[in-house]
Amino acid sequence: MEDDCIFCAIVAGRAEASIVDEDDVAVTFMDLNPVTPGHLLVVPRTHAAGLEDLDGETSAHVWSVGHRMARALRRSGLRCDGINVFVADGEVAFQEVFHFHLHVFPRYAGDGFTIGADWKERERALLEADAEAVREGLGAGV
Amino acid sequence: MEDDCIFCAIVAGRAEASIVDEDDVAVTFMDLNPVTPGHLLVVPRTHAAGLEDLDGETSAHVWSVGHRMARALRRSGLRCDGINVFVADGEVAFQEVFHFHLHVFPRYAGDGFTIGADWKERERALLEADAEAVREGLGAGV
Ligand SMILES: [Zn+2]
Ligand SMILES: [Zn+2]
Repeated sequence: MEDDCIFCAIVAGRAEASIVDEDDVAVTFMDLNPVTPGHLLVVPRTHAAGLEDLDGETSAHVWSVGHRMARALRRSGLRCDGINVFVADGEVAFQEVFHFHLHVFPRYAGDGFTIGADWKERERALLEADAEAVREGLGAGV
Repeated sequence: MEDDCIFCAIVAGRAEASIVDEDDVAVTFMDLNPVTPGHLLVVPRTHAAGLEDLDGETSAHVWSVGHRMARALRRSGLRCDGINVFVADGEVAFQEVFHFHLHVFPRYAGDGFTIGADWKERERALLEADAEAVREGLGAGV
């Protein structure tokens, strides 16, 4: 547990949260600043900042809870015509709390959520070089 | 396999893709229109449109591959100071290919990726009601 981590505090019951579900490995609670009503965070009980220090077994469990939550949102009565799952890993990737968490939130027409990027089709030769670079990364003891 | 599904065609080797990795359950290849160089898609071999029809075991495996890919991206030599993982489940949630896929992409300062929403702190009483609604969804045979 990290002393000044708000999610560790929530997991330990020392900070307020609207808890949906908990088990031995993960806790699910409502995001205080939701994209849409129903926006959930699933966190491991054990502190890990992100994908680098989160162990594989815990990670798979957190994801499985998130999958179940997505199905629950569609059956919740909350407005939900689609779902986004989002992980921000690192400050440049919009992470704000440095305790790994899975965002799961309902979507519906006109909900105001947007994503933007400079999407362009990438040449096959460049894609092949990117794929080779990732394979090298895989070989580097991942 | 769905006849007109481009990801089923990639999995079957009938459509071109820059493949990074494959196993009995999942295939990872480069997104043709990347947010950033290194943008990967991890898909199950078996066709499932989204989180509703994707079985739990396959889902956890696809996520685990995605986690490993995130670690590989950080070791790939491609520019990568952070990672986003994103799932678009349903048309309103920006899904474009209706074969479940996990987006995993590198992030760095100035990469042009943005998200937007009308973020506001939500009152505790509303968050508690949302949590109760999700618990009811969980009870509905998820
Ligand atoms: Zn923590
Ligand atoms: Zn398919």
